[in-house]
Amino acid sequence: MVTGPGLFVVLEGGDGVGKSTQARLLAERLTAAGHEVVRTREPGGTRLGELVRALLLDPAHTEMAPRTEALLYAADKAQHLAEVVRPAVARGAVVVSDRYVDSMLAYQGAGRVLDAGEVEQVARWATEGLRPDLTVLLDLDPEQAVGSLVSKDRLEGAGAEFHDRVRQGFLSLAAREPDRYLVLPARRPRDEIAAAVWARVAALPELSDGRGTVIR
Amino acid sequence: MVTGPGLFVVLEGGDGVGKSTQARLLAERLTAAGHEVVRTREPGGTRLGELVRALLLDPAHTEMAPRTEALLYAADKAQHLAEVVRPAVARGAVVVSDRYVDSMLAYQGAGRVLDAGEVEQVARWATEGLRPDLTVLLDLDPEQAVGSLVSKDRLEGAGAEFHDRVRQGFLSLAAREPDRYLVLPARRPRDEIAAAVWARVAALPELSDGRGTVIR
Repeated sequence: MVTGPGLFVVLEGGDGVGKSTQARLLAERLTAAGHEVVRTREPGGTRLGELVRALLLDPAHTEMAPRTEALLYAADKAQHLAEVVRPAVARGAVVVSDRYVDSMLAYQGAGRVLDAGEVEQVARWATEGLRPDLTVLLDLDPEQAVGSLVSKDRLEGAGAEFHDRVRQGFLSLAAREPDRYLVLPARRPRDEIAAAVWARVAALPELSDGRGTVIR
Repeated sequence: MVTGPGLFVVLEGGDGVGKSTQARLLAERLTAAGHEVVRTREPGGTRLGELVRALLLDPAHTEMAPRTEALLYAADKAQHLAEVVRPAVARGAVVVSDRYVDSMLAYQGAGRVLDAGEVEQVARWATEGLRPDLTVLLDLDPEQAVGSLVSKDRLEGAGAEFHDRVRQGFLSLAAREPDRYLVLPARRPRDEIAAAVWARVAALPELSDGRGTVIR
């Protein structure tokens, strides 16, 4: 999917499902196997992105309009793609990102204010249509996910119904492209999930040539 | 054009052509005539917009990707529309804005990196397709405009060729919808320009009913 010799893997799912833990475990395993790994996240992942992220997650910004929010997420994604993902993939690295376009589509779509197709158009334009080679969706009942959080930022303060729509949004995206997704129940033990992720990543054509380096 | 009983007037043009001076003079005249006037600007005009504006104009952000820039401008516009323009027009006020969508189209288009049609699509989505009742374009040879500036921010530091493309971009937009534009040579004396702007604004159907209040 990606234009370049590297690989682009994304961890998706609601808050508190263990995305960053799994991203770290995957990155460690890839590094141990001899790959250059770039661990990153959205929103954020770049200096500008972190500034945009701070705007987005500040609970004081209650006046933020739905389109403003969507466009700020899209701006963050555009910068992340241009500054981090594309260059890394082009030089043959494996990019492991905590969230990507799907999060924007699932969360914005769940808001039910904006037209989902229009939001997707903006998100695809921001990221020049680039899709990950593999998206791992850590799926969890939002009741359990929200319960695991200590702090609540602006988005996490939303209701359980909202988070259920987010979950359904992710599952719908995965259902559209089953070959490019690995959906795992986030309640399973950490190491079991890590093993399943690794099995799938190691089986990707880019990694399964047995030479321990990424080729395409 | 605007959905609401009020009026939406925009001042456009390159840097240093006198947009904010003319916006102030127009606002004063409208206020004296008994209208509620909301003076505003883009980027900025809202608390969130000012934060986005600071990101956009910071000369340190040399790494900003073209799509990031376009999307940040669009985010600012979306917030401005939702928080300032629409509510003011809906309650019958006259909104006088220093820059609007045209600036984004002219500047981004002049960059020649992004597809102009795609940028316009994003800008129109951000602003829900809302167009001003009147756009006053203060047209000036960029050589003279740039020379009048004391400080240079990130965009103003660009070359003369760039600013000439910006100018042509504005003129093209005006040519597309002549009925909705007033193009004036910015080199004319300040009061002469102000008189021409006032004559056109006063002749708008929303203001020319002779009762001194905005109706639609």
